[in-house]
Amino acid sequence: MARTVAVFSKHATTLLNKLRELLPNQVFVEVLLSDLSALKEAEIIVGDYNLIAPYLYQLPKLKWVQGTWAGLDSLWPHIDRHAPPKFPITRTSGENFGKLMREYVIANMVFWERNYLKAIENQKAKLYDRDVSSNDYRSIADLKVAILGVGAIGSIIGRSLKDLGATVYGMGRRAAIPLEAPENAYLEKYYTETDLIELLSSVDYIVNVLPKTPETTNILGNGMLKHCKNKNVVFINIGRGNVLTELELVQALNEKWISGAILDVFEKEPLPVESQLWTLPNVFITPHISGNSRAQDIAEKFRINLARFEKNEPLENQVDFHKGY
Amino acid sequence: MARTVAVFSKHATTLLNKLRELLPNQVFVEVLLSDLSALKEAEIIVGDYNLIAPYLYQLPKLKWVQGTWAGLDSLWPHIDRHAPPKFPITRTSGENFGKLMREYVIANMVFWERNYLKAIENQKAKLYDRDVSSNDYRSIADLKVAILGVGAIGSIIGRSLKDLGATVYGMGRRAAIPLEAPENAYLEKYYTETDLIELLSSVDYIVNVLPKTPETTNILGNGMLKHCKNKNVVFINIGRGNVLTELELVQALNEKWISGAILDVFEKEPLPVESQLWTLPNVFITPHISGNSRAQDIAEKFRINLARFEKNEPLENQVDFHKGY
Repeated sequence: MARTVAVFSKHATTLLNKLRELLPNQVFVEVLLSDLSALKEAEIIVGDYNLIAPYLYQLPKLKWVQGTWAGLDSLWPHIDRHAPPKFPITRTSGENFGKLMREYVIANMVFWERNYLKAIENQKAKLYDRDVSSNDYRSIADLKVAILGVGAIGSIIGRSLKDLGATVYGMGRRAAIPLEAPENAYLEKYYTETDLIELLSSVDYIVNVLPKTPETTNILGNGMLKHCKNKNVVFINIGRGNVLTELELVQALNEKWISGAILDVFEKEPLPVESQLWTLPNVFITPHISGNSRAQDIAEKFRINLARFEKNEPLENQVDFHKGY
Repeated sequence: MARTVAVFSKHATTLLNKLRELLPNQVFVEVLLSDLSALKEAEIIVGDYNLIAPYLYQLPKLKWVQGTWAGLDSLWPHIDRHAPPKFPITRTSGENFGKLMREYVIANMVFWERNYLKAIENQKAKLYDRDVSSNDYRSIADLKVAILGVGAIGSIIGRSLKDLGATVYGMGRRAAIPLEAPENAYLEKYYTETDLIELLSSVDYIVNVLPKTPETTNILGNGMLKHCKNKNVVFINIGRGNVLTELELVQALNEKWISGAILDVFEKEPLPVESQLWTLPNVFITPHISGNSRAQDIAEKFRINLARFEKNEPLENQVDFHKGY
């Protein structure tokens, strides 16, 4: 029996198109902010966490929520960890984000090293200046890159950088990982936080993919980025903004400990209009979109999980209410 | 015996640094536009074609010219093909350009599909707009890409796109190529010019890498791009600007046969300030820099060839005065 699925999302139109394309026999109804009635009847919801979270304990018929994001920041304030929801909440998967985030990292490295942001300015001025890139810019094949966080996402990024010729170093929470294993073959060396100074002293790029946990908060703070000084190091943050405070990041840029920053995440999001980061030279800002949830990826994850749901099999990418991720 | 090598280049300073770094025992002298005397004594010259070409027949001591570019357009007008120079002229190699050009292609695809050029505008306005990318943008893994010209450079680009999940089609001059051979494994299918319409009807991106020859001139002209209509096809030209006239390219954009163009080469270079391309929407212009010659790559090629020169071995990447490339 096909169940009605409620879709509650800021991007419901695109999402419904993709869901109906993938699952033409499934009935979907859109939940409107002005009319929540579909929500009350729903057994299954595909939804944005910030929209659905306030109602999680008010929907007795609810059997499953497929979230549209990976990040759970907007979910936790509404979850009582002592009495978590009895139904599963599933996320979109890390593999998709890895594929999208590697594209962000590669593209931004190239635009940065080759000064293509200036090429955009030149086009506006109708200026054909072949010297816009220096003639000794770094290609990805010349770069030594530290990936902070080499889990599902970080390893996908690292492998692609290695494919493009970069030398890739990883830092993670595990004490050691088997570098001889094929899945770690992209890594030149593996570090733990204990050796972070050595790692920062050795690389051209730092790519942070670490999740926000008490252990990662301020891991690049307390002047840690001083160890990058005078080496033209660029910091790419696509993990979370907790790894150092905005104040310390601004200091690292002003003191030229790092030569630039490509920032997709921030200590405070949305980045406040007062932030110095908006206008500092050598900073490129994107609004937390390096691995944004695309309608087709959400729909595909829902298709897989719906088949499991109907067969009473465990769903993929379930949120663990106790562990907090 | 170490010979003196004359360096005659617009970017002589950077180039001399890299040459002296790689070959500390070799003596290099800079040729100045205001003082050509070093040129007259030189047995070996490392030089830009446009600077050195006028003097090729006036330097009796000259035994070898290492060029700093791959493209020979500025060389040919000064070469008498019935009495070509008796010394070799060597180019920088396609492999390096392939590595640089693949980065251009990948980075521009990502910036284009995810609308990051708009993100740059938003930063200037301090606007944190998470909807800057649509939520069903295409990742490289979703793209079908036609590479026109699958020689040394095109195949490097194609392999990297395949590594990132794209479906890659190739078009070349050979009647057929063995798709089962490992070096062609990145290709989904191989086309010749005869099947160009079928190819253009099947893809999301066209990446032109073809050299300028009588056979490639106007290959995408005569309304050929009509076959891309209504499919959100983006045209990347990093080959030469002869594949269609600027007039036809502007028409293809205006009539929406293609949805955009990322252009590094033009029918006329430098792109004239009157060109409509500068200001057409959905056009990104770079000044023939997708595979620009970097000082380190020129120096490395010279190092390899100097060792061969001193052992009287054939030099790598010699210009063929008869074939014209």
